Amino acid sequence: MIAATPIQIERTTNPKVKPDQDKLGFGVHFTDHMFIMNYTSEEGWHQARIVPYQPITLDPAAKVFHYGQTVFEGLKAYRTEDGRVQLFRPDMNFKRLNRSNDRMSIPPIPEELGIEAVKELTNIDQDWIPDGAGNSLYIRPFVIATEPLLGVHPSHEYQFIIIMSPVGAYYPEGINPVKIFVESRYVRAMVGGVGEAKTAGNYAAGLKAQEAANEQGYTQVLWLDGAEHKYIEEVGSMNVFFKIDGTVYTPALNGSILDGITRNSTIQLLKHWNIPVVERVLSVEEIYEAGRSGKLEEAFGTGTAAVISPVGELNWLGEKLVINGGATGEVSEKLYNNLTGIQYGKQEDPFSWMVEVK
Amino acid sequence: MIAATPIQIERTTNPKVKPDQDKLGFGVHFTDHMFIMNYTSEEGWHQARIVPYQPITLDPAAKVFHYGQTVFEGLKAYRTEDGRVQLFRPDMNFKRLNRSNDRMSIPPIPEELGIEAVKELTNIDQDWIPDGAGNSLYIRPFVIATEPLLGVHPSHEYQFIIIMSPVGAYYPEGINPVKIFVESRYVRAMVGGVGEAKTAGNYAAGLKAQEAANEQGYTQVLWLDGAEHKYIEEVGSMNVFFKIDGTVYTPALNGSILDGITRNSTIQLLKHWNIPVVERVLSVEEIYEAGRSGKLEEAFGTGTAAVISPVGELNWLGEKLVINGGATGEVSEKLYNNLTGIQYGKQEDPFSWMVEVK
Repeated sequence: MIAATPIQIERTTNPKVKPDQDKLGFGVHFTDHMFIMNYTSEEGWHQARIVPYQPITLDPAAKVFHYGQTVFEGLKAYRTEDGRVQLFRPDMNFKRLNRSNDRMSIPPIPEELGIEAVKELTNIDQDWIPDGAGNSLYIRPFVIATEPLLGVHPSHEYQFIIIMSPVGAYYPEGINPVKIFVESRYVRAMVGGVGEAKTAGNYAAGLKAQEAANEQGYTQVLWLDGAEHKYIEEVGSMNVFFKIDGTVYTPALNGSILDGITRNSTIQLLKHWNIPVVERVLSVEEIYEAGRSGKLEEAFGTGTAAVISPVGELNWLGEKLVINGGATGEVSEKLYNNLTGIQYGKQEDPFSWMVEVK
Repeated sequence: MIAATPIQIERTTNPKVKPDQDKLGFGVHFTDHMFIMNYTSEEGWHQARIVPYQPITLDPAAKVFHYGQTVFEGLKAYRTEDGRVQLFRPDMNFKRLNRSNDRMSIPPIPEELGIEAVKELTNIDQDWIPDGAGNSLYIRPFVIATEPLLGVHPSHEYQFIIIMSPVGAYYPEGINPVKIFVESRYVRAMVGGVGEAKTAGNYAAGLKAQEAANEQGYTQVLWLDGAEHKYIEEVGSMNVFFKIDGTVYTPALNGSILDGITRNSTIQLLKHWNIPVVERVLSVEEIYEAGRSGKLEEAFGTGTAAVISPVGELNWLGEKLVINGGATGEVSEKLYNNLTGIQYGKQEDPFSWMVEVK
């Protein structure tokens, strides 16, 4: 399979020393190789290649530096106990990448080629997939507009690149509830904007609020809608769920919320377990009311990096709300154990989510 | 003055052939030199230097590619008929750059050094300032986050770069009214977001709406507020003004509108001429009502590229509104003539806006 792809391969002659597997961090170390493919209006996507990890050289007028025409994805490769290497739902990443591309006026990537590139790159750098509980190989596909023109128009030239980073467990001690600041001043995105696209500007827009929350001792911010500052959107770089009186609620996708793959997988698992799950507009007021009346049982974020991240406390306009006594809830823990169990091949994969890299 | 700055200079040994001054375009050709300065958390801004125009080499994990932490500015240098070279209000650009930096969690640039860098670079490449009516040298300062780390946090490393491009008159035939599509679906920015910052993501967010408007024969889009889609924000990459019954109105700065330097200069000139000018919330409905009742006398955009761009027609939800019979209005023309007159040194500069490069 892999040998039949049109991807040219140039192997490094100077492999790097691998980092200490107990001190990996997130996105700090990068593997020996990267994937690159070019786009021009005339040739389309072409020159798919794997090369030694190396700097990118761009004209200073390249549009990515000025107008932010760029999208990215994030997924992980896991090493199972019996030595297999598997990816979690890579098809979902490439479908979303192309939805992001469409919103940002970037030409679509052939999805099969993208998945093949991830597989082949993972295969070549498979020695970089760390052992150890919770360790994995984080894979970052991204597209940048490279045409050196200052007119505000979609670029006619792009690069699609994949880099990979061995990463540690998000919570080295196991999952641990975080404190979240409900952001009422700054806004990440709004309906009609680009909140649903995985594009750079959404992340830059969130930095200032995140810094302010960190200074007050909160790990992340909970974003509210841009129009009324009433409705819950997402948490930092995760989607968010609340369990109230036995039912799990999450904000419905509305165009300004990221369509998270761990979010989607969480909903499928909850349904599989016959736990009621509802996607709808959720106000922060009703979450607080449920909390005050003792009906808010759990809250958690979902995302590729942390998988499931329990929320132990919210702070909304100075009112603190402790959730489940600040401890990890039962459903949060079950989701974490099952999702990571499937990802590391420790348990059955009822939805055929995992894709083996051979 | 210039010789006393700490800017290191490496001159090119291989000057480029200059482009045909009648076919310059906008941001297509770049001069022989560029300015670069680096930032690290430890050293602050350092190593200010002018070097031959050359590619930028960055790690593929550099934060600018993934999280869009970047800001830019745009200003112009003009050659006067008596051979002097002058800049239009560069202090305003560097003040705004630092407001953008603050919003995007980027450390401030020393404003005096920034202005000195623009002057020195313009001086070195002054042969690139084109002659000819409406021609000028467009100057693009920008900051990019360069730290190679995938964590979503502000970068600890940046580059501040200035590149320059000889540009033609925006309207080679003189100013000419444009058709504008009032955008009711897509949103550029909202209060609480980053609309006031001159940052890449705002421009990427506008591409799709602009493409759709272009396909329908409109030059730019008029952005409405993100919350209600009722209130006027700005036009494409310009601020916008409307003359109704003798008074000129423009949307008040609200945090989601760019604080344009040509906007500010236009307001000052109107006041200088005793033409009433009002900055307030403006609904698209009231503009249409004024148009239907014959009281809408003129509409125009303001920006560095076009200076003054008359609007001859709006299209809002299918209803077309022709303004001033589709012709350039008297005040629009007077503003254009006076602003360009000051910029090219053809007339008195009552506000001491121009800064000579010696």
